[in-house]
Amino acid sequence: MNTPEKDTILEASARISSFIHRTPILTSKSIAEILKCQLFFKCENFQKVGAFKYRGATNAILQLTKSQIECGVATHSSGNHAQALALAAKINNAKAFIVMPSNAPKIKKDAVLGYGAEVIECEPTLEARESTLHQVIKETNAEFIHPYNDFNVIAGQATAAKEVIEELSDLDFLIAPVGGGGLLSGSALSAKYFSPDTRVIGAEPIGADDAHRSFEKGEIIPSVNPNTIADGLLTSLGTKTFPIIKENVLKILTVDDSLTIEAMKLIWTRMKIIVEPSAAVSLAVVMKNQDFFRGKSIGIILSGGNVDLNTLPF
Amino acid sequence: MNTPEKDTILEASARISSFIHRTPILTSKSIAEILKCQLFFKCENFQKVGAFKYRGATNAILQLTKSQIECGVATHSSGNHAQALALAAKINNAKAFIVMPSNAPKIKKDAVLGYGAEVIECEPTLEARESTLHQVIKETNAEFIHPYNDFNVIAGQATAAKEVIEELSDLDFLIAPVGGGGLLSGSALSAKYFSPDTRVIGAEPIGADDAHRSFEKGEIIPSVNPNTIADGLLTSLGTKTFPIIKENVLKILTVDDSLTIEAMKLIWTRMKIIVEPSAAVSLAVVMKNQDFFRGKSIGIILSGGNVDLNTLPF
Repeated sequence: MNTPEKDTILEASARISSFIHRTPILTSKSIAEILKCQLFFKCENFQKVGAFKYRGATNAILQLTKSQIECGVATHSSGNHAQALALAAKINNAKAFIVMPSNAPKIKKDAVLGYGAEVIECEPTLEARESTLHQVIKETNAEFIHPYNDFNVIAGQATAAKEVIEELSDLDFLIAPVGGGGLLSGSALSAKYFSPDTRVIGAEPIGADDAHRSFEKGEIIPSVNPNTIADGLLTSLGTKTFPIIKENVLKILTVDDSLTIEAMKLIWTRMKIIVEPSAAVSLAVVMKNQDFFRGKSIGIILSGGNVDLNTLPF
Repeated sequence: MNTPEKDTILEASARISSFIHRTPILTSKSIAEILKCQLFFKCENFQKVGAFKYRGATNAILQLTKSQIECGVATHSSGNHAQALALAAKINNAKAFIVMPSNAPKIKKDAVLGYGAEVIECEPTLEARESTLHQVIKETNAEFIHPYNDFNVIAGQATAAKEVIEELSDLDFLIAPVGGGGLLSGSALSAKYFSPDTRVIGAEPIGADDAHRSFEKGEIIPSVNPNTIADGLLTSLGTKTFPIIKENVLKILTVDDSLTIEAMKLIWTRMKIIVEPSAAVSLAVVMKNQDFFRGKSIGIILSGGNVDLNTLPF
């Protein structure tokens, strides 16, 4: 399979529509007044498992053959993709094997177990995660569903931006956070196919700015020792996501965590909705670049709402 | 004016409809599964100023004469009614004079000032609040809009339950928190007129259970030294709200603050929306009385979402 075409995204959208929530697009008069632009928030924090990741996981699982489903699916993740794959597998009567580092928060492990998945613990290193996953797949013959470097996953994530564009035909900008690049590359493809005048911008924490640096240099620079409160954006770009981003994204803007926390607070207090730090990064880039965005019409993909209430940054 | 009739509520609804948000009714599959009943959450946390109070304040102000509007409106409140009256006055080009205790949180005073109201500080006693308000009214000739003991306010608050009933015709129960009783009495009237088979239940913190005790005794027992995290429910019932509640409410259930905090946490984490403690009390009574509510269809009015993120209970 190659880079998803227009039809690939349309098919993904039809395929997953009865499995996902069509999340609402909310506005906030007060935030718009503060930032002097029109803002439309696509609330993927209201998506199943609390994050857009459920779209990609569902689109990938629904394309497995019957015999693949019988063997189950596997991944390594301590974040939203783990929960997304676990629930999507459960709904489709497949087993899910999730490799998680032994130091992953109990709350996340419990969530994955709650969806009926099998959790396999490993040492908290990328090497251990990959070798443990390899072992699991060897034993179970389960299908590996990568969190972002998979065209089926990318096409699934693209459906969020597609829904935004269906409801808002004349956006100047669409902003999505970037970690591994699944959401950003998918959003860029949807804008290209369904709203070519809408420019897509990536939002990234300064403490994990590998996508920004990769974009500037024109080649993937891996994320080394990233440090940010936006724990969904720690990973490096993939070989499938980067070329799409390179070709179809206007730029990648970076922000300090302090501004991300301020953006998160603004969304919580003014909109009365819960978003995780990784989701607030997109609003933070608008706050940082107010002159650039003044008077513009901007879609913001609020990527998720999974926070641990015991470790809030305020 | 007497107890609002069916037509009074219909008129209030039509009068305020272009000024308020018609708030969404959300469900949560996971909370419903945990509590083994059908739950429908009316999200007044998404109402303007973040609380249902905007309905009553708007309905009251819209019925003032031109000369009354010229003199402005006044109240004493450190809570959501203060913000609601301030914004409703601003929208209708009236001055608002808000008497607030000198120890009210700065965040609340700033919110009221932000809506263009004049804040008059007084000593933090009920006596000082009333005498200061009296003085303000004497000087300005402003119209006093009581937070709940006012039939126009009650008719305005009733419109939230009316909207719930319009969308859900066969609810077994409708639960609203009770402080002064504006929301509960209005909800009870809407159920009586528009869905007589739906039983209305009040939810109250044990540390401020004057409504429960008043209901049992059949006469108003004032709230003395209330102590609860649900800071919107500290006040006593009024002479206009109590008779309506006495006649039209099935019962008033009380809960500990610890359960209210648990309910609040459940709503935040599962629904990704922010509700204040006073709003979570309604879900807490369902959690406490699971046998009673098992299998039932229940509307819950989430009264507001104004919390200070710096003083969260978790």
